[in-house]
Amino acid sequence: MEQGGKAALGWAARDASGHLSPYSFSRRVQGDGDVTIQVLFCGLCHTDLHVIKNEWANAMYPVVPGHEVVGVVTDIGAGVTKFKAGETVGVGYFVDSCRTCETCRTGHESYCPQLVPTSNGVDLHDGATTQGGLSDAIIVSQDYVVRVPETLPLAGAAPLLCAGVTVFSPMVQYGLNSPGKHLGVVGLGGLGHVAVKFGKAFGMTVTVISTSPSKRQEAVEQLGADAFLVSRDAEQMKAAAGTMDGVIDTVSAGHPVAPLLELLKPMGQMVLVGAPAKPLEVPAFSLIAGGKRVAGSAVGGVGECQAMLDFAGEHGIVADVEVVGMEYVNTAIERLERNDVRYRFVVDVAGSKLGVDSA
Amino acid sequence: MEQGGKAALGWAARDASGHLSPYSFSRRVQGDGDVTIQVLFCGLCHTDLHVIKNEWANAMYPVVPGHEVVGVVTDIGAGVTKFKAGETVGVGYFVDSCRTCETCRTGHESYCPQLVPTSNGVDLHDGATTQGGLSDAIIVSQDYVVRVPETLPLAGAAPLLCAGVTVFSPMVQYGLNSPGKHLGVVGLGGLGHVAVKFGKAFGMTVTVISTSPSKRQEAVEQLGADAFLVSRDAEQMKAAAGTMDGVIDTVSAGHPVAPLLELLKPMGQMVLVGAPAKPLEVPAFSLIAGGKRVAGSAVGGVGECQAMLDFAGEHGIVADVEVVGMEYVNTAIERLERNDVRYRFVVDVAGSKLGVDSA
Repeated sequence: MEQGGKAALGWAARDASGHLSPYSFSRRVQGDGDVTIQVLFCGLCHTDLHVIKNEWANAMYPVVPGHEVVGVVTDIGAGVTKFKAGETVGVGYFVDSCRTCETCRTGHESYCPQLVPTSNGVDLHDGATTQGGLSDAIIVSQDYVVRVPETLPLAGAAPLLCAGVTVFSPMVQYGLNSPGKHLGVVGLGGLGHVAVKFGKAFGMTVTVISTSPSKRQEAVEQLGADAFLVSRDAEQMKAAAGTMDGVIDTVSAGHPVAPLLELLKPMGQMVLVGAPAKPLEVPAFSLIAGGKRVAGSAVGGVGECQAMLDFAGEHGIVADVEVVGMEYVNTAIERLERNDVRYRFVVDVAGSKLGVDSA
Repeated sequence: MEQGGKAALGWAARDASGHLSPYSFSRRVQGDGDVTIQVLFCGLCHTDLHVIKNEWANAMYPVVPGHEVVGVVTDIGAGVTKFKAGETVGVGYFVDSCRTCETCRTGHESYCPQLVPTSNGVDLHDGATTQGGLSDAIIVSQDYVVRVPETLPLAGAAPLLCAGVTVFSPMVQYGLNSPGKHLGVVGLGGLGHVAVKFGKAFGMTVTVISTSPSKRQEAVEQLGADAFLVSRDAEQMKAAAGTMDGVIDTVSAGHPVAPLLELLKPMGQMVLVGAPAKPLEVPAFSLIAGGKRVAGSAVGGVGECQAMLDFAGEHGIVADVEVVGMEYVNTAIERLERNDVRYRFVVDVAGSKLGVDSA
């Protein structure tokens, strides 16, 4: 165990192989405003994958990944007013921010230039590397903790903390949450399948757009989408041109966006939540003539995350997940890399043996 | 003279040379809801150029260009309630739309799929080709006519009808009209120079961004911009990164947009009003990480146009223009093509001899 603080056990990557193995470390001492959380479940997100394999060249090994955390409060600091021991809570993509910049002040903390990611970030308190949710416990300022509705199955709730708010936030921000509006969801993965569920719960018409005709059945029959478009089928795409109020694009593999813009009504809004590495080719004329809009969106603020969870609680929305034990996590990461999961892996952290020895 | 209706004299292009020469034609008979306007001044816009040279492959020759029209009402139909003879009015880029679609109903007529451009459009009344403002008179439904404040110099007011509303509309729509906000204006031409004036009148900090260092003086000293950035100067651009609430890009020549996105604060808004022919290369990661937005915008609605003119009247804003007689129009078009004008040509239509014979 390094330094003082609370002894913690997690699984960490040590190098760009991204292979996770048991890791003993210490959490910071619980501060006055901090909540100590026993981790129950933690989702695996593509961002974890990029970080542990150092694909973004910013890994500070050892890295304990995981930022879709659901757990139970086990202890609180003297100044904590929002939570008490025994409550079920969640922690998402970040655990702190500057709290003073324009985005922090307006509830859009995820755009704070000093954002502290839950994993592989730099703790503003002590400069230590933050370690994520694939560990027995986590200590987080109460201002970055959200309440998880008791009615929700906890494993399925975990991915809402990142995937859920990532699609919910722009839907609300851009008015893609009104009954009767038509939403297109591009890509049916961790983010896309939750977007479909939120869209239907908002009372919208939802069309899933995918390169894989094989996804029609799950989109329509299992997730309740109203329609399905094969993006490579020019005729189908043409027939749907100008029909959508908004399109949420969750695909991070390179793909043409011009045909997706054509799906929008005049003044329609496209939102990018998946980031292809190569620049998008955006036809200016199409944007201008139609008064169309393209926005990027990352995660969402703490308040938005709470609103999303409250909404999910009311409508019984959780992610479709495959729950695995920690001993399976490296296999899960391999499968995640080839999108072989419907739709999110969630590690049963509390139900797993985390250490291999007495460390 | 063709068909029935009101005899009119204008200057028209007959072929893709775009050369304008006198043209006798007829306007539709003034309907119950129509206003007959004697044209006083008409601005020349790049769109006119594209159309008369058939660069958009849609010219229906003969084409009388001109959609930045200021004139005086000479006659009104029996059902006209909004205007009376003798009033100074304006007509912009379009003279009709379907009036029933979502964009029409919400005051965003310029995005109506059935929009009828003032020039080279198809009149919904009689199927005739619409002829623009480079003519002695024009007949327009009162619902597509706006009032020009009496305090404004009329020649300078003419370009407001297209250039003015094209920048004003997105500024208002995207909240780039608040004191203290920082607006970047890319390109200092017909649109850009008016955007600077509106920005200053809104109480904003305005920075002009241009490839030409030579434009610094006019931007700052003549137009009142607060700062000037040379877009090719990486150091200057870097120093301004993350400082702007919005950027209006008026440049229709191909240019990189990624460096412009860097100028935006988190959640900042870029608006495209100039349309490069080649697709823009938009870095998705930059959009997503910053929650940034790119929108296209075309012209603006009739109500927005009136609001813009009222605002311009209150603040004494007109375009900087070079007023020319009709006999100079072909030279003006050549000069417009090479951007050799500060910042807009306006034809003194009423002060010009329009016919060459007794036709």
